[in-house]
Amino acid sequence: MQQQAHGGNLAWAAALAGCPPDAIVDFSASISPLGPPNSVIAAIVSQLGNLRHYPDPDYSELKLALGHFHQIASEWILPGNGSAELLTLLGRELAQLSATMLITPAFGDYYRTLAAYNAKVLEFPVDLKTDNRELEGYSPHLPISPSPHLPISPSPHLPISPPPNCGLLLNNPHNPTGKLFTRDSILPYLEEFALVVVDEAFMDFLPPDEEQSLIGLVQEHENLVILRSLTKFYSLPGLRLGYAIAHPHRLAKWQSWRDPWPVNTLAAAAAIAALQDTEFQEHTWKWLPPARNQLFQGIASIPGLQPLEGAANYLLVESQQSTSQLQSQLLQQYQILIRDCLSFKELGDRFFRVAVRSQSDNQRLLTALKSVLSAES
Amino acid sequence: MQQQAHGGNLAWAAALAGCPPDAIVDFSASISPLGPPNSVIAAIVSQLGNLRHYPDPDYSELKLALGHFHQIASEWILPGNGSAELLTLLGRELAQLSATMLITPAFGDYYRTLAAYNAKVLEFPVDLKTDNRELEGYSPHLPISPSPHLPISPSPHLPISPPPNCGLLLNNPHNPTGKLFTRDSILPYLEEFALVVVDEAFMDFLPPDEEQSLIGLVQEHENLVILRSLTKFYSLPGLRLGYAIAHPHRLAKWQSWRDPWPVNTLAAAAAIAALQDTEFQEHTWKWLPPARNQLFQGIASIPGLQPLEGAANYLLVESQQSTSQLQSQLLQQYQILIRDCLSFKELGDRFFRVAVRSQSDNQRLLTALKSVLSAES
Repeated sequence: MQQQAHGGNLAWAAALAGCPPDAIVDFSASISPLGPPNSVIAAIVSQLGNLRHYPDPDYSELKLALGHFHQIASEWILPGNGSAELLTLLGRELAQLSATMLITPAFGDYYRTLAAYNAKVLEFPVDLKTDNRELEGYSPHLPISPSPHLPISPSPHLPISPPPNCGLLLNNPHNPTGKLFTRDSILPYLEEFALVVVDEAFMDFLPPDEEQSLIGLVQEHENLVILRSLTKFYSLPGLRLGYAIAHPHRLAKWQSWRDPWPVNTLAAAAAIAALQDTEFQEHTWKWLPPARNQLFQGIASIPGLQPLEGAANYLLVESQQSTSQLQSQLLQQYQILIRDCLSFKELGDRFFRVAVRSQSDNQRLLTALKSVLSAES
Repeated sequence: MQQQAHGGNLAWAAALAGCPPDAIVDFSASISPLGPPNSVIAAIVSQLGNLRHYPDPDYSELKLALGHFHQIASEWILPGNGSAELLTLLGRELAQLSATMLITPAFGDYYRTLAAYNAKVLEFPVDLKTDNRELEGYSPHLPISPSPHLPISPSPHLPISPPPNCGLLLNNPHNPTGKLFTRDSILPYLEEFALVVVDEAFMDFLPPDEEQSLIGLVQEHENLVILRSLTKFYSLPGLRLGYAIAHPHRLAKWQSWRDPWPVNTLAAAAAIAALQDTEFQEHTWKWLPPARNQLFQGIASIPGLQPLEGAANYLLVESQQSTSQLQSQLLQQYQILIRDCLSFKELGDRFFRVAVRSQSDNQRLLTALKSVLSAES
């Protein structure tokens, strides 16, 4: 069994740790520790009797609920079997352009889907240090009113002139750094790129007054595609549910490329319940900033580790020691799984990523990190 | 809302019938009325706590269970989000050949996936009359030991020489006719076609001593692909689960074309439980032949209707009257949904398909058909 280039591979981790998968404390997958909400589990159970029917191929109720949530007509929405399935459709779309620009380090699944359709990839590094905004050869787009509450990164720092007919694929907040780009800093790229895809898989962790989603601009920009996920915020990666928001013509084309029932009945019902659970949403928005801060401060206090400020539910950490070695030690001694960054070639063995979990889990991680690193030095 | 070219679109039917979707008696989707098995529902419920984790990207346990069930090593198996997702991957594979031959009338989703990748389609009609085995221009392959218990159709009747580098895609039992081709009659095509895909979505309705699966031959024929579904036999179309059995090299290529977690956690657990439920399997094999015979005899006794003998859990019926009109009347007057055959261009408005359901549902259909048709004449 090989480790995949993604967090959350518990079967692999359990084999290495010599314990059952559910004994692993998983910091590698950036999933909220608060869910799934009870409302969602109840919705799933209520639909067990409907498994004997095919899902509605129009997903009318689901699209209506998503449209209501985002204040957009439902024909602008395409649900998928996790946003990973939509990324696959996107790969085929992007392969028709001259090239696709990625902000690196980039989510490994972007390379996967682009390679699956032999799309040409151009890579441009994001600035890892928040305060270093002026890199030679990068965009002069100015930061426009970044939120005062957030470690907001003004711009993805792209070159002014991409090649003709080029696509841009980025995530916001950025994974794995956790940087949040301002909405206004992405806007100019809509003029410069043939297609701009913003993967907002973690945007729902930002409360409404701080989020920088571009969903509100999709109807004005035919070359804008937004990807969203319900996996992370509602703790449902096992159920598979994401969606794309884009021009209906583009979504109809994608629909013609795929099978008729990509979203299972339980996931569709779960999504509707999740979107309506405002109590869970507000609880999450209250929980995250102090929990993330606790984890950030704890890691920063450990010699040899330097966390980056992040806007989402995970932190990227720079380490003076090998993180693959650290990962093995944490697994074998503490049954704790962190995300190494070997699959991000710009980061390699000196970075790891951890999810923000409950206070007691976070404390358990901090204790384990301290113990392993002090034994090393 | 438009009707899709497939059975089971209850939202569409309910709108036409003016009733809630769960009030429709659905004969249009060929789903067993016996399931889902209790063992499967229990397995799903037991996994609700694991939705917070990603599925195992290797699907090791699931592949082991499928391999055990079919007596084949698990690297020859690729699970999918319903066999429809695997058909999509197959479309990309078939598009690389010079053409793909379909036995018509063909399942609408075959055209969908071939069109999605601009694959060239060649069509060859199946013989609709069981006793007419000698059609001009068709294959001389002889029927070899057809089972004495079944209305078995000796051969798909293909031309002797397909064009070079051509694929063949057929279902066995055939949908919508219900014909079962003998294993031996398909074998010669493995020499004549670059790739032979047998969609065995309904093969599990045949008991072990009557089935004609080619799974046992996959390891000897690198150009053979089998598709299977757990949707129909275990009544789980809402959950999405199918699998392909083919050479590991081919499956690895398909895997590189798709997203890493196509099968949700609940479907994977449901599949393992379903395969182990031998009691449910044996009950189904005992139930189907008399239930199908009851429905066949009942339909045959109605003037203007002529059912075809079929080996699966559905019957194709030839009608002297318009079946789209019949479909509307059954929906509006009886909340019964039958499958019209307008999407099968060779059949058109003079055929419909019905699933075999419970004795009382079948009787309800027969009563409604008699009533509607006698009012017409």
